Order: sequence, then structure tokens, then C-alpha cells
Amino acid sequence: MFSSDDLSSLRWDATSGAVEVIDQTLLPHTLRWVHLESLEDYCHAISAMQVRGAPLIGITAAFGLAHGLRDDSSDQGLAVAYDKLLATRPTAVNLRWALEQVRDEVGELMPFARAEAAWQRAVELRAEDIASCARIGEVGLPLLREAQRGDTLNVMTHCNAGWLATIQWGTALAPVYKAVEAGLNVHVWVSETRPRNQGVNLSAWELQRAGVPCTVVADNSCGQLMREGLVDCVVVGSDRTAANGDVCNKIGTYLKALAATDNNIPFYVALPASTVDWRCDAGEHIPIEARDSGEVLAMAGVDGAGESRQINLAAAGTRAANPAFDVTPARLVSALITEHGCCTADPAGLQALRAQLYDL
Amino acid sequence: MFSSDDLSSLRWDATSGAVEVIDQTLLPHTLRWVHLESLEDYCHAISAMQVRGAPLIGITAAFGLAHGLRDDSSDQGLAVAYDKLLATRPTAVNLRWALEQVRDEVGELMPFARAEAAWQRAVELRAEDIASCARIGEVGLPLLREAQRGDTLNVMTHCNAGWLATIQWGTALAPVYKAVEAGLNVHVWVSETRPRNQGVNLSAWELQRAGVPCTVVADNSCGQLMREGLVDCVVVGSDRTAANGDVCNKIGTYLKALAATDNNIPFYVALPASTVDWRCDAGEHIPIEARDSGEVLAMAGVDGAGESRQINLAAAGTRAANPAFDVTPARLVSALITEHGCCTADPAGLQALRAQLYDL
Repeated sequence: MFSSDDLSSLRWDATSGAVEVIDQTLLPHTLRWVHLESLEDYCHAISAMQVRGAPLIGITAAFGLAHGLRDDSSDQGLAVAYDKLLATRPTAVNLRWALEQVRDEVGELMPFARAEAAWQRAVELRAEDIASCARIGEVGLPLLREAQRGDTLNVMTHCNAGWLATIQWGTALAPVYKAVEAGLNVHVWVSETRPRNQGVNLSAWELQRAGVPCTVVADNSCGQLMREGLVDCVVVGSDRTAANGDVCNKIGTYLKALAATDNNIPFYVALPASTVDWRCDAGEHIPIEARDSGEVLAMAGVDGAGESRQINLAAAGTRAANPAFDVTPARLVSALITEHGCCTADPAGLQALRAQLYDL
Repeated sequence: MFSSDDLSSLRWDATSGAVEVIDQTLLPHTLRWVHLESLEDYCHAISAMQVRGAPLIGITAAFGLAHGLRDDSSDQGLAVAYDKLLATRPTAVNLRWALEQVRDEVGELMPFARAEAAWQRAVELRAEDIASCARIGEVGLPLLREAQRGDTLNVMTHCNAGWLATIQWGTALAPVYKAVEAGLNVHVWVSETRPRNQGVNLSAWELQRAGVPCTVVADNSCGQLMREGLVDCVVVGSDRTAANGDVCNKIGTYLKALAATDNNIPFYVALPASTVDWRCDAGEHIPIEARDSGEVLAMAGVDGAGESRQINLAAAGTRAANPAFDVTPARLVSALITEHGCCTADPAGLQALRAQLYDL
């Protein structure tokens, strides 16, 4: 039920080679599919954040490179398209990885064969991401079953790590969708996720589109809901995981982990194994991006007439700080859920995962 | 420096009997003083939340009752004015208390003497509140001094428990203002306080007006700032404190207390002793007000042209929950700061405070 294009962030037509993405900057107020018809369209989709979420960015870029090779499949054409796409989000590790996947596949080919091979590789990457996320869902499902205490399974999530951030399924929300598919009675607490509101803008929208009951709450409410016994478990994603199990994720994740621990509620982190940074031995070494203070001081939405509006919340001259991520220490994480299985959030658990990944 | 009418939420003229309050619904974008010229003006100021904060509501009502008695000082006039004012915010304990203070003072008097006596009692209540808050500031100051670790004293607060919530000084912010007055180099982290944004709307505004450096952050950021060593202590107010030291305060307070404890940062609660509910032996017995979900799903601010705007954040049909308060367990509270001195947040500490209050 959850594998259709209706619940996908990027769809493609095998015959025509057309690719469409949801313009996520318009969500949750407007659903608009954007046809990507030139290399420039792909670059704009990524740089203007019409697509976001590391896996989705990477796969969009892979299709973009294939598209660029249709127009110019020479060595120079490959290099130009690669560089243009890479420059759209300079710090996105996954973007570079996906572009390299395509370039490595086609670089040695004769130019006339490149566009088709690149397209095939992009299609493969898309399918691999879907399979990987589905597997994260299957791995996480038994943990959610175990956590359920009443008639309804009440899951809390933060930010958006659902199918809008990947191609389908998502990471943190994959176990939720698998639970729904398995017939469980699921309800999701969606925390707003200030300052960029990904919870209310994206997670609430995609859950509602998938028919999953959910309730938006202010980030501040999450501790009280746990104290009242209204939360069975928390599942979040991870931007980067250290080799000791510390988790760097959207700002506010750490507070939820503290509250979950204080209330004996399992706190799970779902992630593709590729987001583990094996060279980083502890979360304290992860630099925290400081984003523009305008994200804190202003907010976007629609007015009563449905018109997009940006409003200022603070008096002129007010100063704000905007750390975009925080680090949740491994001791607060009940388990890591990956496409290769679960592991404990500690050096031994991560080492076992690594051994499995690299056949050590 | 902080005692002038410029840093007061309610000012009066001894000669004319005129009372003015800041219309807090317009903050932080517009400072407008509202002249209260009839009983209806007073009722409207309270019910429309032009004034908020328990102490300020109470004292506004006391002046309102005095004003009502000028127009009709009969027994019936007294009863009508009392009832009208009490109905403005039915659950505000302090409102009833302040109205009773005035009624008890004047009820036995001949009607012609009532208006003047009521006015005098309201003026006294105002002075008592100022003295009480100033004392909370003096009691808290040594704790702040002790917490300071670098050149700057970095205090984090939540919601608004400053001079806008009282008459002057505030409760949680009183020690901050006293620290500034004592020459300390103070900086305040103001957490936005979703969903009603009292941090950015009120605390940031009143601190800036008092010339105290402050920085607004999303509520989600508070844990990470503590992990980075940027917070020396947290000071918040309390709506209601149980006899065991559990603190019911604005939603999100509990998460800050968890983060402070996890980072060995003192977490102080400043409160007038009148907010201790001696009949409530634990926080779990305090009912949590569920407010309208619209407060979560919509937000008010001003657009680029300075026009007031209300925007919707969520898609139509999105469900939200809005618990207005949470309970911070006493074990997370470093000390309670009251106008009668500090005490530990436990039954023994509260008992000692009670003995002092009631001369036991």
C-alpha cells in the first residue's frame, strides 16, 4: 500500500525519461510536482531546496547528471554537469557520493553510451534507496511492536525523516509505515521542529497523505506528553552518527532523548549505515552548523486567503542564535536501526555493524 | 535604575487617579499605553489579555474595583464590579485574591468612604508587589553570582516572568535585573516559548528596553547551548508549586530542567510564596490546562510593511494538541527563590518556608 508513486518524493517515467519531484518549499499548503526538463532545472530543484533530505538530494543529482549527459556526453559535458550539480549544496556528503556513483559508472564508456548508462545507474540508486529504507522499516517494526503499551501504538518523531526526505518509506518513519502496513493501530506525535518547522510542514503532511493519524505539538510539549504516558517510543533520524554511538540530528533531538530516558521510554535512531562517520570517534567532534538568525525571528505560512506570507516575530534589532543540530549522547539512545539490522549505540555495537558492512 | 515607570507594566497618577497599562497584545512590535477610564476598560484589559501575568492581573483588577466604586459605591455597585472583574479570567487565583483584598478593606465602610479606601488598598498592593519582586531579585542575586563561570553571566530563561508579568522587576528576571544593577556583565538566553512566543514577544522586548543584552533561541536549542558551556544557570518562574517542590510552569520548562541537570547547570525557580499550593502534595495532582490547538497551528507577527498578520502553519485539517503547562519534578530544581529567602525544592524546604510564613 505504501509503495506507490503517490507516496514518493521523486517519480520517473521509464519510457519518456521524464522526472518529477514534489516542490517541498510549497508544502504543506500546496502540492506541486515540478517537471525537471534541463540540467538547470535539476540544479535549481536542489539549490532552492525544492528537494531536501540527503538521500533525495543524492538521487535527484544522479538523474540530473544523466540528463546533462543527454545534452552533452563528452568528457567536458560530464565534468561541467558534475561540477554544476555538486555546487548546489556544497556540504551535502550524499550529493557527492551519488554523483561519483554515476560518474564512475560512465566515465570509461564511449560518449554515445554514457547517457543511457547514467540513466540506468540513477534508476538503480533510486531502487536501492527504496529497498534500504524499506529494510530499515522492517528492522524497526519489532521494536515498535514491543514498545506498544495500549490499544494504540503512540510514536513520537522529530523533524522529517520520512518519504519526503528519501524516495519512499523514509528512515525514522519507515518503521511507522511498516507498522501501519502490518495492521497496527498507529498514532504519531509530530513535534513542530522550530525553527524551520519540518515537523508541521513535512512530517504531518506526509503522514496525513499516507492516512496515518498524527497530532502536531509544540516542541516544548514533548516532555509533558511522555510524563502523561501518551508516548510509547520515540524514533528520529540522524544526520551523522559517531563511531561511539553519539547522534547528531536536528536541533531539539537531545531534549527528546533526555525526556524519553527520564520516563523510561525507548528512544530509537533510524539511519542508513552510510551516515555513520567511522572517522569520528565522539559527538563532541562534530561541528554544529550555525544557520541564519532570520530563521528564528521570522516565519512563513499562509494567510486566511491562502496567500503565502512571511512574518516577523521579534522587534527590529533583536538578536537570535540558530544552531541547526545538536548531539545526543549515546547513553540516551536505546538502539540504532539500520538497513543491516539493529545495534546498540556504543563502540561495540558500531564495531559489529562495521564488521558486517565491510566483511571484516 | 530599574524602578522607574519606564520599566513598569502599570503606572498611575496619584493626583488624577489615572491608570495606564501596556497593551501586551501589541508587543513586541508596538508599545501602546492604554488609559483605563471605566470599569469596562479594566475588564477588557484583563479578558483581552492586554495585561497578563498573575501579579499584574491581580493589581489591575484591584484598581478596577476602586474605579468601579467611584461610579457606584453602594453594596450592589461593589458586588457588580467584583463579579464583572472576577469573570474576566475565571481560573486566575491571584485575580480573586486581589479582589478580595480590596473588598475586605472596604466592605464594612460607609459607601462614601469606599472608593478612596479601595484606591489606597490598590496602591498598597502595587507597592507590595514591587517590594516582593525586588526582594526575590535580591535573594536570587548571590546564586547568580555563584553560577557565573566566565566574564559574562549567561542566564537562560523561559516564557516571561519579568516586569511585564508583575509591576516591576518580575520574578525569574528580578535576579537578572539585580545582577545588572550590581554591575555584573549579564547576557540572557531567551527561549522563544512556543506556542504563544512569550519569550520572543515579551522577555526579549522587556530585556532590550531595560538595556540587558539578550539572544532569542528556538526552544529546541536550549540543550545544545548548555552542552557547549554557554549557559551558567537557568531561572524560570512558577505558576503553581506543590508542597513537595514540584513546579508547574509554562510548557517546556521540564525539558530545560532535564538539560540543566544533565549538564550540571543550576536550575532555579523564582516565585512569590503565594504561588505555593500547600494543599497540593505533588505535581502529579496539578491539572494541566489544554488550550486551543489554533495556538499551535497559527502564528501572529508583522509583515514587511509592519502590518499585523496571522498565518497558518499547517495544512487544513491538521490536528494539534496544546498542553499549556508541564510539571518539573522537584529533584531537577536546584533551589526555590522566594521573597522570604531561598529553600530547597523538597518537603523539608517547603515546610521551613511555610513555618516562616505563618509563624509556626
